[in-house]
Amino acid sequence: MARVDGIAGTCSFPPRVDDEQSQAGLEPPVGKVYFVHKVIIAPSAPGNQKLIHTMSTHKVLIAGAWRAADSSGSFQALNPATGESLADHYPISNWADCDAALSAAQQAFEGLRQLAPQVMADFLDAYAVRIEARAGEITELANHETALAVEPRLASIELPRTTSQMRQAATACREGHWTHPVIDTAAGIRTQFGPIGPVCVFGPNNFPLAFGSVSGGDFVAAIAAGNPVIAKAHPLHPGTSRLLAEEAQAAAKSVGLPAGTVQLLYDMSHADGERLAQDHRLAAIAFTGSRHGGLKLKAAADAVGKPIFLELGSINPVVILPGALAEKGEALADEFTGSCLMGTGQFCTSPGMLVLQAGERAEAFVNKTVKGFAAAPSGVLFSESGRESLATSVQRLHQAGAQILTGGTAEAGDAPRYTNTVLRVSGADFLASSTALQGEAFGNATLIVMTENQAETSQVLNTLEGNLTGCIYSATDGSDDPAYDELAPIMRQRVGRLLNDKMPTGVAVSPAMNHGGPFPATAQAGFSAVGIPGALLRFAMLQCYDNVRPERLPLGLRDQNPGELWRQVDGRWTQSSL
Amino acid sequence: MARVDGIAGTCSFPPRVDDEQSQAGLEPPVGKVYFVHKVIIAPSAPGNQKLIHTMSTHKVLIAGAWRAADSSGSFQALNPATGESLADHYPISNWADCDAALSAAQQAFEGLRQLAPQVMADFLDAYAVRIEARAGEITELANHETALAVEPRLASIELPRTTSQMRQAATACREGHWTHPVIDTAAGIRTQFGPIGPVCVFGPNNFPLAFGSVSGGDFVAAIAAGNPVIAKAHPLHPGTSRLLAEEAQAAAKSVGLPAGTVQLLYDMSHADGERLAQDHRLAAIAFTGSRHGGLKLKAAADAVGKPIFLELGSINPVVILPGALAEKGEALADEFTGSCLMGTGQFCTSPGMLVLQAGERAEAFVNKTVKGFAAAPSGVLFSESGRESLATSVQRLHQAGAQILTGGTAEAGDAPRYTNTVLRVSGADFLASSTALQGEAFGNATLIVMTENQAETSQVLNTLEGNLTGCIYSATDGSDDPAYDELAPIMRQRVGRLLNDKMPTGVAVSPAMNHGGPFPATAQAGFSAVGIPGALLRFAMLQCYDNVRPERLPLGLRDQNPGELWRQVDGRWTQSSL
Repeated sequence: MARVDGIAGTCSFPPRVDDEQSQAGLEPPVGKVYFVHKVIIAPSAPGNQKLIHTMSTHKVLIAGAWRAADSSGSFQALNPATGESLADHYPISNWADCDAALSAAQQAFEGLRQLAPQVMADFLDAYAVRIEARAGEITELANHETALAVEPRLASIELPRTTSQMRQAATACREGHWTHPVIDTAAGIRTQFGPIGPVCVFGPNNFPLAFGSVSGGDFVAAIAAGNPVIAKAHPLHPGTSRLLAEEAQAAAKSVGLPAGTVQLLYDMSHADGERLAQDHRLAAIAFTGSRHGGLKLKAAADAVGKPIFLELGSINPVVILPGALAEKGEALADEFTGSCLMGTGQFCTSPGMLVLQAGERAEAFVNKTVKGFAAAPSGVLFSESGRESLATSVQRLHQAGAQILTGGTAEAGDAPRYTNTVLRVSGADFLASSTALQGEAFGNATLIVMTENQAETSQVLNTLEGNLTGCIYSATDGSDDPAYDELAPIMRQRVGRLLNDKMPTGVAVSPAMNHGGPFPATAQAGFSAVGIPGALLRFAMLQCYDNVRPERLPLGLRDQNPGELWRQVDGRWTQSSL
Repeated sequence: MARVDGIAGTCSFPPRVDDEQSQAGLEPPVGKVYFVHKVIIAPSAPGNQKLIHTMSTHKVLIAGAWRAADSSGSFQALNPATGESLADHYPISNWADCDAALSAAQQAFEGLRQLAPQVMADFLDAYAVRIEARAGEITELANHETALAVEPRLASIELPRTTSQMRQAATACREGHWTHPVIDTAAGIRTQFGPIGPVCVFGPNNFPLAFGSVSGGDFVAAIAAGNPVIAKAHPLHPGTSRLLAEEAQAAAKSVGLPAGTVQLLYDMSHADGERLAQDHRLAAIAFTGSRHGGLKLKAAADAVGKPIFLELGSINPVVILPGALAEKGEALADEFTGSCLMGTGQFCTSPGMLVLQAGERAEAFVNKTVKGFAAAPSGVLFSESGRESLATSVQRLHQAGAQILTGGTAEAGDAPRYTNTVLRVSGADFLASSTALQGEAFGNATLIVMTENQAETSQVLNTLEGNLTGCIYSATDGSDDPAYDELAPIMRQRVGRLLNDKMPTGVAVSPAMNHGGPFPATAQAGFSAVGIPGALLRFAMLQCYDNVRPERLPLGLRDQNPGELWRQVDGRWTQSSL
């Protein structure tokens, strides 16, 4: 197999050579890759300035090496902006690839347990530097695969967020506070969180970098907690995942991580995905994506008692109380419109439902919102199937009793666009079909629920399933306070993050963030997918040491504090040694 | 319905009046109840000195009142020591009872969210005092229902453990450290754990008080976190559960908790149990018991995304390394024998598997252990079905290749006893049938695995499923250290609590305790069922407040520290105000 790992400070990439070349042991051209539709030019290595036709299929990253997949077929990504297929072919792995990745991950985990956490931290830092060094190429390809704008979205927002998360995870890894050491000196019992073992990360379509399976929040959390990761690329951005994985592998090698700490598969059958989820060599799963796919994977994992952390859909209810509407209804309509249409509504925290109390000002708000939606250009969705899914969801809301105020149609053209859509339903009609009417319409659509009075608003909120977020806007003069006091406790139990006077679309990477919530928003309401160090705990197990001899304890549980580690000793938090 | 709630400082109990009496609104006799086989005497209330024949069925505790069950039948407990049925009849509730309890719990939760945590703490303290005041009666009835000795087990060990846990939970509730407040002042985001909602607790057969559904660790953890509890009594000790629930209800009333904060059902069909688990009014489930029952309930809960915390079987592997055997093999054989036979082996942490490396000293250890098992009287098991299950499990181990060295037979007599049993298997045979040979034999039986060498021991440990505990005994002179260094990491990932030089049967109620472990020992390896405040987190959700106005924040998240609450503010733990 051709050696394609990079070394620190240089860039490398897996070869797009055909199988014959690969089998003959030919070395691939080395250099940067620029994507032009249908062909790839590898211009930067002298003597390799040539076009490579791409009927060959990319290699998978298993056990520290890029190797030809054991595959049953291949797929290409599309450029949503043009509707054209991108040139590269990516393999749909057979079980043999999954099996090999699982064994390599298991072996990597044994190696990782012998290493100081510092090495993982060094990896994350080195990986961040490498992503920045290759930022242009990564964001360009991500743009081709997702139609997200290079500027500002990919290059100035998502990529810096990604490397910042990575560095925060590195710091968490070095500091070790996430292990939450608890020491009972009298009983001789000491406990901390430790790594759980190999984790498979299924990333979503909507953040190719910051939530990407080989670079995003789940990846860095699992890694920082000391676990190997098998990344399953999202099939809408395989190339972006590949570029990232190249840098991850190069960084892993540069710091001496065991081969197989980071692995990448592009796709597999659903059956193999479920078999992977159930395999005893895998310790945990993180999945961000559609409810349908997530619940199928959860069923497979649950059947064998495998921990699975899901982040599924959410409609993120927003309530604007009458006083707030009176104070600044027009501004709020703009704020709401902006939040709904940001990223063409393809955010987990996009507000898919707004509750207003009927009245003149509510009507004015609706009118302004409808005008705003109608006037804004409709963004490109990630895929044609995404457009179909959005259209179906809007139709379901309509059939369940909601009126389409604007939008509700596919836009003409090659790119998958759907007209910005506002639906409306009365509180009574919502209550009559609350299950159907809280179905998520992922994309640039939202539903306004117009209630008769506060009691009906309260009833509407009481029907809600678990959501990631919930917002209540109220007047600054206190006139909405009684309503807030009634509604907030209802909202509180149904959402992970309760906001005041602010739209939910921003998800700060803060230790205090909760990007989580009750089922079906996530599988476990006690954990956040965003925020370090908290997010690491999903990929950890509680490890108790009872009467274990001092020299055998992990460093963080010994009498001597290994640094400035926060530990709970006999009920008090301290950074001191015993 | 007859009013049967007690008031603070007095004892009361639900009537064993028949339905006619109840429907006629007759008040029950008030006084202490003493159990004599087949009849109940209620002597202490003047004028009520009479025998009550017990064809009537006990009432269930729903919505703050003891009321006639909507039942499809009834059952009686047996006294395992005599094989006789105890007099009292307990109802098998229909769905209507479950439904009523769920609605009452939901309503209670709304009330609880308006109360200061102090009230729940007062309840737990008051309940502990009441249990102590009624200790004689409770332990006597528990003894009749379980055959566990009143002294020292029930009265001097389990009951004090129960009230101590309760008071620790009260303290946790008052102090609030378990809520783990995290404040990011710059981002304006604040997060803490809050109560999850109504919890159903299914208690086990083996600790009627300390793990009892209405008094044990799960109960106090769920309550201290602010949740109502629907307790499902274990059908082997319904009367003990009833006496405890009487005191719980009286204490709840005395401090002003909402009706329905504590409820008790004795039994229900499996179908209704699963329907209960899936009901949207229920927020979480705790189950301690058999793997079969636990996994059925888990499947029901998983299907609707309901959090369920299981504590199932565990074989708690013990490894004694050659050096330790050389240093004190005889003493260790006694220690092992004592740990295995304590409580007739009916502990979650009873060592069901011992791994030795073949040799003369290992043979001596086996001989001494076999003699010890054979010489010790075999204790009474909790039930005839428990004896049958133990016999079946031992036969399965035998059929899978293990030799029975002593025991392996039912004892004659009315009480369910099984001869103290030691089985033996070679490492090679274990590896050939490792799934069958790590089946739990709940009771006074254990399996010794004799390996050829350290490599084989390592292979044996590598086949183990998740367990609550794992122990390694090693020499004090360092001669076993290389073996320890190889084996401990393998054990570490498979157990919640790793012990050195100590049997696992003691489970200290310590903040550092982990009574948990990887599946199938429990459902989630990140949580402990014992140890306060950690155990509370199972019944909590992460509640984030983003931009929420200061006066609307929970007290623990406001700038002013409400007391001496430990909070993580901008990355540092502090008890100060902002």
